[in-house]
Amino acid sequence: MTHDDVGRLIERLAFASIDHLRPHTQGHAEVIFCSGKTPGQVTAIAERLAAATGAGEFLATRAEPPHVEALRARFPRAEVNELGRTVYLAPDPEPPPTGRGTVLVVTAGTSDLPVAEEAAVTARALRNRVERLTDVGVAGIHRILTQTDALRSAAVIIVVAGMEGALPSVVGGLVKVPVIAVPTSVGYGASFGGVAALLAMLNSCVAGVTVVNIDNGFGAAAAASRINHS
Amino acid sequence: MTHDDVGRLIERLAFASIDHLRPHTQGHAEVIFCSGKTPGQVTAIAERLAAATGAGEFLATRAEPPHVEALRARFPRAEVNELGRTVYLAPDPEPPPTGRGTVLVVTAGTSDLPVAEEAAVTARALRNRVERLTDVGVAGIHRILTQTDALRSAAVIIVVAGMEGALPSVVGGLVKVPVIAVPTSVGYGASFGGVAALLAMLNSCVAGVTVVNIDNGFGAAAAASRINHS
Amino acid sequence: MTHDDVGRLIERLAFASIDHLRPHTQGHAEVIFCSGKTPGQVTAIAERLAAATGAGEFLATRAEPPHVEALRARFPRAEVNELGRTVYLAPDPEPPPTGRGTVLVVTAGTSDLPVAEEAAVTARALRNRVERLTDVGVAGIHRILTQTDALRSAAVIIVVAGMEGALPSVVGGLVKVPVIAVPTSVGYGASFGGVAALLAMLNSCVAGVTVVNIDNGFGAAAAASRINHS
Amino acid sequence: MTHDDVGRLIERLAFASIDHLRPHTQGHAEVIFCSGKTPGQVTAIAERLAAATGAGEFLATRAEPPHVEALRARFPRAEVNELGRTVYLAPDPEPPPTGRGTVLVVTAGTSDLPVAEEAAVTARALRNRVERLTDVGVAGIHRILTQTDALRSAAVIIVVAGMEGALPSVVGGLVKVPVIAVPTSVGYGASFGGVAALLAMLNSCVAGVTVVNIDNGFGAAAAASRINHS
Amino acid sequence: MTHDDVGRLIERLAFASIDHLRPHTQGHAEVIFCSGKTPGQVTAIAERLAAATGAGEFLATRAEPPHVEALRARFPRAEVNELGRTVYLAPDPEPPPTGRGTVLVVTAGTSDLPVAEEAAVTARALRNRVERLTDVGVAGIHRILTQTDALRSAAVIIVVAGMEGALPSVVGGLVKVPVIAVPTSVGYGASFGGVAALLAMLNSCVAGVTVVNIDNGFGAAAAASRINHS
Amino acid sequence: MTHDDVGRLIERLAFASIDHLRPHTQGHAEVIFCSGKTPGQVTAIAERLAAATGAGEFLATRAEPPHVEALRARFPRAEVNELGRTVYLAPDPEPPPTGRGTVLVVTAGTSDLPVAEEAAVTARALRNRVERLTDVGVAGIHRILTQTDALRSAAVIIVVAGMEGALPSVVGGLVKVPVIAVPTSVGYGASFGGVAALLAMLNSCVAGVTVVNIDNGFGAAAAASRINHS
Amino acid sequence: MTHDDVGRLIERLAFASIDHLRPHTQGHAEVIFCSGKTPGQVTAIAERLAAATGAGEFLATRAEPPHVEALRARFPRAEVNELGRTVYLAPDPEPPPTGRGTVLVVTAGTSDLPVAEEAAVTARALRNRVERLTDVGVAGIHRILTQTDALRSAAVIIVVAGMEGALPSVVGGLVKVPVIAVPTSVGYGASFGGVAALLAMLNSCVAGVTVVNIDNGFGAAAAASRINHS
Amino acid sequence: MTHDDVGRLIERLAFASIDHLRPHTQGHAEVIFCSGKTPGQVTAIAERLAAATGAGEFLATRAEPPHVEALRARFPRAEVNELGRTVYLAPDPEPPPTGRGTVLVVTAGTSDLPVAEEAAVTARALRNRVERLTDVGVAGIHRILTQTDALRSAAVIIVVAGMEGALPSVVGGLVKVPVIAVPTSVGYGASFGGVAALLAMLNSCVAGVTVVNIDNGFGAAAAASRINHS
Repeated sequence: MTHDDVGRLIERLAFASIDHLRPHTQGHAEVIFCSGKTPGQVTAIAERLAAATGAGEFLATRAEPPHVEALRARFPRAEVNELGRTVYLAPDPEPPPTGRGTVLVVTAGTSDLPVAEEAAVTARALRNRVERLTDVGVAGIHRILTQTDALRSAAVIIVVAGMEGALPSVVGGLVKVPVIAVPTSVGYGASFGGVAALLAMLNSCVAGVTVVNIDNGFGAAAAASRINHS
Repeated sequence: MTHDDVGRLIERLAFASIDHLRPHTQGHAEVIFCSGKTPGQVTAIAERLAAATGAGEFLATRAEPPHVEALRARFPRAEVNELGRTVYLAPDPEPPPTGRGTVLVVTAGTSDLPVAEEAAVTARALRNRVERLTDVGVAGIHRILTQTDALRSAAVIIVVAGMEGALPSVVGGLVKVPVIAVPTSVGYGASFGGVAALLAMLNSCVAGVTVVNIDNGFGAAAAASRINHS
Repeated sequence: MTHDDVGRLIERLAFASIDHLRPHTQGHAEVIFCSGKTPGQVTAIAERLAAATGAGEFLATRAEPPHVEALRARFPRAEVNELGRTVYLAPDPEPPPTGRGTVLVVTAGTSDLPVAEEAAVTARALRNRVERLTDVGVAGIHRILTQTDALRSAAVIIVVAGMEGALPSVVGGLVKVPVIAVPTSVGYGASFGGVAALLAMLNSCVAGVTVVNIDNGFGAAAAASRINHS
Repeated sequence: MTHDDVGRLIERLAFASIDHLRPHTQGHAEVIFCSGKTPGQVTAIAERLAAATGAGEFLATRAEPPHVEALRARFPRAEVNELGRTVYLAPDPEPPPTGRGTVLVVTAGTSDLPVAEEAAVTARALRNRVERLTDVGVAGIHRILTQTDALRSAAVIIVVAGMEGALPSVVGGLVKVPVIAVPTSVGYGASFGGVAALLAMLNSCVAGVTVVNIDNGFGAAAAASRINHS
Repeated sequence: MTHDDVGRLIERLAFASIDHLRPHTQGHAEVIFCSGKTPGQVTAIAERLAAATGAGEFLATRAEPPHVEALRARFPRAEVNELGRTVYLAPDPEPPPTGRGTVLVVTAGTSDLPVAEEAAVTARALRNRVERLTDVGVAGIHRILTQTDALRSAAVIIVVAGMEGALPSVVGGLVKVPVIAVPTSVGYGASFGGVAALLAMLNSCVAGVTVVNIDNGFGAAAAASRINHS
Repeated sequence: MTHDDVGRLIERLAFASIDHLRPHTQGHAEVIFCSGKTPGQVTAIAERLAAATGAGEFLATRAEPPHVEALRARFPRAEVNELGRTVYLAPDPEPPPTGRGTVLVVTAGTSDLPVAEEAAVTARALRNRVERLTDVGVAGIHRILTQTDALRSAAVIIVVAGMEGALPSVVGGLVKVPVIAVPTSVGYGASFGGVAALLAMLNSCVAGVTVVNIDNGFGAAAAASRINHS
Repeated sequence: MTHDDVGRLIERLAFASIDHLRPHTQGHAEVIFCSGKTPGQVTAIAERLAAATGAGEFLATRAEPPHVEALRARFPRAEVNELGRTVYLAPDPEPPPTGRGTVLVVTAGTSDLPVAEEAAVTARALRNRVERLTDVGVAGIHRILTQTDALRSAAVIIVVAGMEGALPSVVGGLVKVPVIAVPTSVGYGASFGGVAALLAMLNSCVAGVTVVNIDNGFGAAAAASRINHS
Repeated sequence: MTHDDVGRLIERLAFASIDHLRPHTQGHAEVIFCSGKTPGQVTAIAERLAAATGAGEFLATRAEPPHVEALRARFPRAEVNELGRTVYLAPDPEPPPTGRGTVLVVTAGTSDLPVAEEAAVTARALRNRVERLTDVGVAGIHRILTQTDALRSAAVIIVVAGMEGALPSVVGGLVKVPVIAVPTSVGYGASFGGVAALLAMLNSCVAGVTVVNIDNGFGAAAAASRINHS
């Protein structure tokens, strides 16, 4: 492609440059990160994305109530996941998953669920089969040990944990498949908003655990989808 | 397996509990991290590992000169990568790579090569085909842009960068395949031993880049191998 | 000037010492930083500054709604930039720009706009010609690459970016002109309120990028104006 | 006791005030922390302590080779633990342990042994029965799970771990007895000299794990001895 | 027990895996940490726990007003400690304490009382006799010195302090019994939310003081109970 | 004094141990730090302090509106400094200052005034003559240079500054008298809530500047009063 | 240019990709950062750069003794600045400076000279006229005040300072020209290797001071040269 | 004085601007901080200072062995304090102390002596009477309590402590006189090179303790001398 061809695939709004090259470079359209954008900006971008994809599809993450309200008003068919703060307009009909296997989202505790749900919705929107395993942190180690078969049958595992962030090491030691660790800001005091869990995961003594930003369920799912589709 | 069966697969030395279950749980034997171990300890563990695998194989990382000397004396056939500080005793004959594709190791600058070499040797030892792309950091952005085809044909990409750690974002934006970012301690002042690069990579605006610890070429390769073999 | 002469140029209010030497030492009058001041204090200072400059001019930054309301009531002709949180009373008529060229304000994402607008308004108030280039972050690198000509024709470039802060390195590598990097607090988790972007910019592998404080659009514009008028 | 009585129990040297009240307040004499003291100072303090206790006993920790040499020359009977950097002059004959049970020292990896040995020697010197369990970190979780009986039969458990510091949570979840976690500086990059392990341990999701300073095997043993003798 | 037996002791709700093995492994049922859970989730878990224990008992910590209200509505007999943010449903009749002695909760200042109360309620719920000593910080050192007898007669001492966190060192130097230090977030500026106190406690020059997370009164009490019951 | 005599000077309330020894040890009664105390607790302590001092005097700092309201209702004669968040009940009649000279409170900017006022009120309550010099920060260096005589005639100087905290170095270099630096949390971004100013002051290249906690106007005044009365 | 044209301007060695586009994009050839490179690598790159520029020119920074020795052996005409750790092979004859004016390098103290010299040599190599002003820190403020004329006649000022880093604010307040602040690692304790100075400079209350990395004399000079040639 | 008069009091060497105004502004000549200066530079500055003061006096701090050797060779009469790393050439005859009373230097432990000695030598050189009290840390609280009379009779107290830095709070609570706290880098792990002690001292619950940089015995003495001579 020439620079001019590329230029035509960038749609310039007053406040955004929408990049319609993404399906070619990344395998999927841009996802709307609502934080720091006005509801009007979010809705306008959603309209352009829905129009650009044949199937009228978009995904918005970190949607606060005003974003949700504006998107719901404009796209009544869109699905809202309140826990995960996502708004997803699925294609109609929704195509079947296309990856090699299942993305399994494992959470250490109940308070980690918002991040896990963001990951689960994103993985689905990126055409992956998704399963969940909830509240299996290391304080009662038998909760995860009795799930070894479920862990080993996944194509990719996302492990979501706050506090001391030990669960990815234990899971990573039980399986051969790729494990993506997501630290969460669950905790207080010397958890420093998720830094303790982040550091633990970066220092895992298990070979081959990779890490994303604190509370970044979206990024973990995007990485899992890259793996599941590679 | 019963607890007793498992117990028999743990070989207890005075200073280490060698875990012969790893090939079953992780897909490969333990790798020896030499740092903080004496040359004698390292050699003793290497002997046990070489004996346990039919093919007489082991990999040692972070080998300082005394470790290298001791291992070379005991295993004359072992290959030493001085830049990457690894000692690898390959099976004889070395089996062909078994993953789905190529692990591409990309480095931002010449000073990042030690970490990149640790990754490359580890990926080979874990039965992956490995290629390298060197000194293509963002200061001269055309160096990486002219390599887009090479990037897109890899199965997994490991991007090694210090200083501001921007290269993984640029690479991640050019391809659909999994990208693992490795921050290095290359830099000075406010690089804080690699923290600047680590934070940049964790905050990548590109969806789906995952990160390992600073200078952890070994971990990046282990993760790439999980992906390449999944 | 004697100490007494200088003393006469310092106007002492109960809560402030207004420094009427600034036009001589700095090339422009004091700018009012509203944060931590009451609306009454801000209005009182604005009155002194407007009276001291022949043209009845002042600029107030970081204006919260009560500051804006108080200034609007007292100076109906003042222009408010809501996104940039500035109130500017331009001279009437507004003199033409006086610098050597254009100050170009580049933003990585939509959420960086408040900082970029603070910079743009300040640069204008300091008598510079200003242009903008918005939402051209590195996730879709072609968005900035197709703008190389615009970048090269500026006299000074201000690059505003949050998250991993990689854009100033890419821009700095494309041009010879001075580049001022402004990290923003856009991001979450390990962005630590803009620290990740700040560190990335300080560690840029490109020679000659300079940096200002997080979210400091005002300071970037003041530096750009020093350069554009030198 | 009057202030004068107390004053007589403080022996003032030029460079130290030796506190002979300690056996009364703390249950044992002062222990010599060699770091930052000259060999001469250490030997002089050791002489005063050996003289003050009927049995000619003292313990020195963090002894570097010059300290060891000086103490060995003066006290030929003293035992040196090179790994743990301790010099201990036991009473002759050494009295039997007096606590309620066993202090079990558990280490995650081989590199954690120096800290574990400091703990073990200190616990012995404070009259506790000591046992060890080595290299049972979470990467191969079955290594610790097969030792549950040993864990449950201890009076107090000291868990020594570096890197992600996950082992104390797993141990704490398996037993009812007091667990003291000792983070070590084993690791690199984002382990920040043991901070990652320290934070993990402080944020343990298991109720009732307490923590001491990084590499503080001495402190862990002193705490364990307080518990074992309470 | 087989994996199947264990599996039956884990009660899977949609949002939680309740671990009925805890009384066997830890000596007491799970405690509900309300933070980050909805009132509905908390009440549901409380019901399961109350049902599982013969005596209809549960303890909830970090209860915000909506949690308190929901629990009070469902369990009118539950006791609320507003300062300590706990809701405790005691068995009826409440059994006598079972530990070896008294858990003494010492606070440096009035502002540390919420953390101290969380500790006191938890220690009682875990079947310990509890006493309190309040506002005896080091600024007026005679306040604690005149209480030496009370300190020495406790089985375990919990010392709660913010600001410079010096009190545990002074207390630890006066007694032989186990001392658990709890840093609090009381302070401002360079206290960094309790970090100053935490660091002081970790660096105590007194042998054998152990530490828990900032504001973690619950954890301190759980550790004290392990000690008091060992 | 015997321990019993001392004990009688400690007045034990349910939530506080009021230390009536302070006038003897510190030269003044306890000052009430309102933060983290209820209005009722603050009023109760104020009553005890007012009763204990013959002249019915107390000082309360960090008083939020509910504290102010409660104190005003109970002590109608008390003076409230809203900017400084203090409530002071002066003796009637107020005795003259007793120190050797004047405590001069210098502020860098208007936003630093709340901390400066806390210092000024405290210094007065501790019987010092107080003067103020406002908004003389280093951006317009002549503002402070024209005040050298005022600086040199003080007995002690308190310098209050946020942002880069450079003013204490300049003042310290101009005078021989004691200089106490107070960093403030004025700033944003990389000021980190006053840390930048704190570090600058601790690293002053001027010999003999001492520092107190961020925003600690009270502590600076207490130190100044110790100096002025020594 | 096509991708192929660009590709031909990148010279690929085994360990480096030399970017001969730099003179076109940046206005000057690559500069060799020796740190982390072997003497052989440095010499090889120097040869390529010297060959590529007609005048046989190169600049190497952060040259340790082995680098210096290797470069001197190969390029006997190269000038070594030992304080600044640079090796510069000037064109023969050296062309006159081409910028609009003088780059003035100001240092706060004698210990800041190595960084200042790196800046001065770099600025010269980039074709700027360079002047120096040494040891004029704020402890004796009159040292800089008596140099106001020299400051005002520069085209760009680089201010190099460690410890509290206050000098750039004072200089910036005295002049209208661009000021680039370079924090140095001079200091100890809470200077944290230059962080205190860096933060001070980022938080300067003077409008328009920009900052580079700690000890980055090279970057400051490159920025100054961009300004001086714009 | 005119600018020209002032200019004549600044002696410009190639590497330093010696400020002969200091005796007038600060009450004493410049003190030589040897760190980062060559022995030749230190000796040259010492010569100028010795020549400028009638009595041939100078003080050098942080003198490493090469500095000591060079100064001893040139000034055979100079006194070296090896522990405190100072070289002091006293006037001959040495004048008597001139302050109002005694500067008392208190140390918590033996390892804090180097910092305490730097303080003691500096205080003497600045014409103060100096006394010492050594190894009286809080672990054995009676060591300091039995010294209350000595503490109360000082004019100023310098308290030097590492680890948890609790001693200044205890001392400050016992006396009315000014207390200057000096944190030291004595400790390990989470002492972070003295940060733990620094934070503790900044957060002292005692009113009126001020703080200097980590290990800054010189600065503490300079501040004490300002107080003692005010």
